[in-house]
This record gives sequence, C-alpha cells and structure tokens, in this order.
Amino acid sequence: MKVSLVTNILKANERIADQNRKFFDEKGILVLNMMSAPGAGKTTIISKTIVALEKEFRIGVIEGDIQSTYDAEKISETGAQVVQINTGGACHLDGNMIRETFDDLDLDAIDILIVENVGNLVCPAEFNVGEDFKVMLLSVPEGDDKPLKYPLMFHESSALLVNKIDLLPYVNCSVDKIREESLKINPGLSIFEVSATNDTGLEKWFAWLKKQKNDKDLSIKSNG
Amino acid sequence: MKVSLVTNILKANERIADQNRKFFDEKGILVLNMMSAPGAGKTTIISKTIVALEKEFRIGVIEGDIQSTYDAEKISETGAQVVQINTGGACHLDGNMIRETFDDLDLDAIDILIVENVGNLVCPAEFNVGEDFKVMLLSVPEGDDKPLKYPLMFHESSALLVNKIDLLPYVNCSVDKIREESLKINPGLSIFEVSATNDTGLEKWFAWLKKQKNDKDLSIKSNG
Repeated sequence: MKVSLVTNILKANERIADQNRKFFDEKGILVLNMMSAPGAGKTTIISKTIVALEKEFRIGVIEGDIQSTYDAEKISETGAQVVQINTGGACHLDGNMIRETFDDLDLDAIDILIVENVGNLVCPAEFNVGEDFKVMLLSVPEGDDKPLKYPLMFHESSALLVNKIDLLPYVNCSVDKIREESLKINPGLSIFEVSATNDTGLEKWFAWLKKQKNDKDLSIKSNG
Repeated sequence: MKVSLVTNILKANERIADQNRKFFDEKGILVLNMMSAPGAGKTTIISKTIVALEKEFRIGVIEGDIQSTYDAEKISETGAQVVQINTGGACHLDGNMIRETFDDLDLDAIDILIVENVGNLVCPAEFNVGEDFKVMLLSVPEGDDKPLKYPLMFHESSALLVNKIDLLPYVNCSVDKIREESLKINPGLSIFEVSATNDTGLEKWFAWLKKQKNDKDLSIKSNG
C-alpha cells in the first residue's frame, strides 16, 4: 500500500518533469538541478558561476528552501534573475513547484537555469524537475563515506563538485576515496575538486557547463 | 488531499512513538534522538560518549541509514550494543522502524539508548520515535545560517552540539550568531561547543546527559 502510493507520487512527478523539460527545450534553456547536504556551498558556487559566465550566458536561478529568502537574496546581489520557492515542510523540490515559477521568471532572457534544491542528500535525487543534468556538491568536512551512504544521489548526478578542498589539511577526508567510490557507483561522473570561497579549481567546472550549453544548442539546431 | 494524507501519517506515527515511549519508560531507559546534516559528526560524538560514560551507563545505539552498515560497524568497535536500520529510500526514522528493533536489542542491559537518525535537517524533526529528548548537531563548516533555514529542528531539540569548532579559524561561521538565532527559535535550548575529534568541550555534554538520565531515574522512582 505504502509502496504503491510512493510509486504513484513519483510517476505523477515524472509526467510534470517531462512537460517542464519540453518547455525548457523549446526555449533553448539548459537546466541544472543542483543538490547537496546543507551548507556544502551551493549558493556560493552558483554566485561565482553567474559572475564568471555573465558575458556569455544569462543565468537564472530558482532557489529552494524550507523557508526564508536568505539564499535568494545572496543570489540577487549578482544581478541575476532569481525566484524563491519555500517548500513549507517538504525536504525536496518537485516538478510542480518548478512549473509554478514560470510566470515569475522572464524565461526568454535566460540561457542557463540553475535550480538550487533543498539541502538534503536523500529525496532530491528521487524527484526530477525537468532538468538536463543533476549536479551534486560534496564538501570535504562531510567526510569521504558519503558515496557509500547516499549512493542514489551520486548515481543520478552527471557532475560532482568536491568543494571546500582548502579545508583538506584540517579534516579527515580522502578525495581519492570519494573519487574511487563515486566512480564505482557512476563511472560517467565528471568530478571537479574546488574551493568556491578561494576560487580554486572552478575553471574546469565553468568549461564543463559551457560545453553542456553549447552541446544543447547544437542539438536543438540540428533537430530544428 | 495531500495535506490530510501527511497529517494522517504523522498522527499514526505519533501513536506508535507514544507506545515506544511507554515501553522505554517501563524499562527505565533514557532515549535520545540524535539528528544532523550528513557528516556533522553524530557517529563520532556517540562513540566518544559511549566510551566516556561506560563505567556509569550502558549505552545502546540504533543506527539509521538509507543503506550500508558503515556507522553501525564503527559504533560496534566500542563494544556497545548496536542495531542498524536501513530505511531503503526514506530520509528519516519513524516510530515503527524503532519498534521493529526491540527484538534485536537486549533492552534490559541498556541504560541510555541513542538513536542516530538519517543525516538530514528536515524530516527527522517531524517524526517522533519515542524519545525523551531530541539532540541536534550542527558542524561549523555548514555555516551560521542554518537556524534561519531549518528552524523546526532547532525548535524541537533540547540540546544543540555545535561541532568541529577546531575548524573555526578556517571557515566563515560565527558561533555567536548560531547561539543567538537558535535561542530566538528555542530559548530553552542547551548549547555545547565541541570538537569531537579533538575531545574539546565534551565534558559539559556528558554532564548534561548524565543529569537527564539521573532526573529520569528519580522521576520514575517517585512515580513508582
């Protein structure tokens, strides 16, 4: 009974996520669903990405939080379009919540849309929102056992940003182990070692993102 | 529809949690429900607590994880009784999962039972498991905005361990701000600044825990 209920919720979400995806494809927008534990540094990475790529791409952001507009305010300092979703008690975003924001964004003025999910390593991985790619952040103070303990999120993500590498001298965490265990779960995962606050390693991440956007543009052109 | 469904689930859980609480009270066991984001240091704190108090109290542990037995294995190195719950996909423990472990623990040989919840700042705060107290960990690399963003967990907890304070020189986090914002949400919260790996500040936490256990024993005696 419980299982079939959960299955139905996931199926209904998948339908809406597919509609969102078609809608974004028609607009030529590349959409990322960015996920991590609380405090891993999603908002900082997004801010740095907006500023670094602002001459090439107009990046818009959908901020997901239980409550508060704290992160949306930080993003709006970059000048980017941003809309806040407050989920109430829900621990993840879903397709319907994303659809509800369409009227609050000027989507014709957005090239890349980054959805910052609720800080949580579990449920966000189960709910598609209409994204092209899921991107995961793992900060090194969280420890190198996370791929073993939360494998679904590593499995579903296309890119993994290992963040806060400036703290490696002070914490018990092996990036090699994260890399090894993550690739066991998901051999196609692109892994970037970065420190968002210290601007370390971000160039490769920016290049990856640009490539995804350019590939999507080419694919739309060749299909149109 | 969705709201009433969630309400029913919470009500059903509350009934089972109450039954668990009565059962624990009859056995004279003090029960803690320990919650935090992934990687905040719950397992390390629990291990240190078991060892520090082993002459006075027999501490048992219920480990909650999506999958894997990694944390349970670490706890079992202390010699304490431990049982692992794998929730499958669920992002929190509930009363029923705890009840299911009763046959796997020798509860007559346990004075304090620590339930280590799934690493998640959202849903664990909504589901009682039959505990006397909820205890929350927040590690300083997660940042000082967490009370604003996840207020329910701060509201529901009786004690807050601010962990990894050895990292304060390297991260942008004010413990004063955590303290101030947490007490706004929950003025009765007991706050302990600790570093579990460096054995800093743990004595006050141990003293708090001992007091809760002794108070419970006195209360049971005076009611019996």
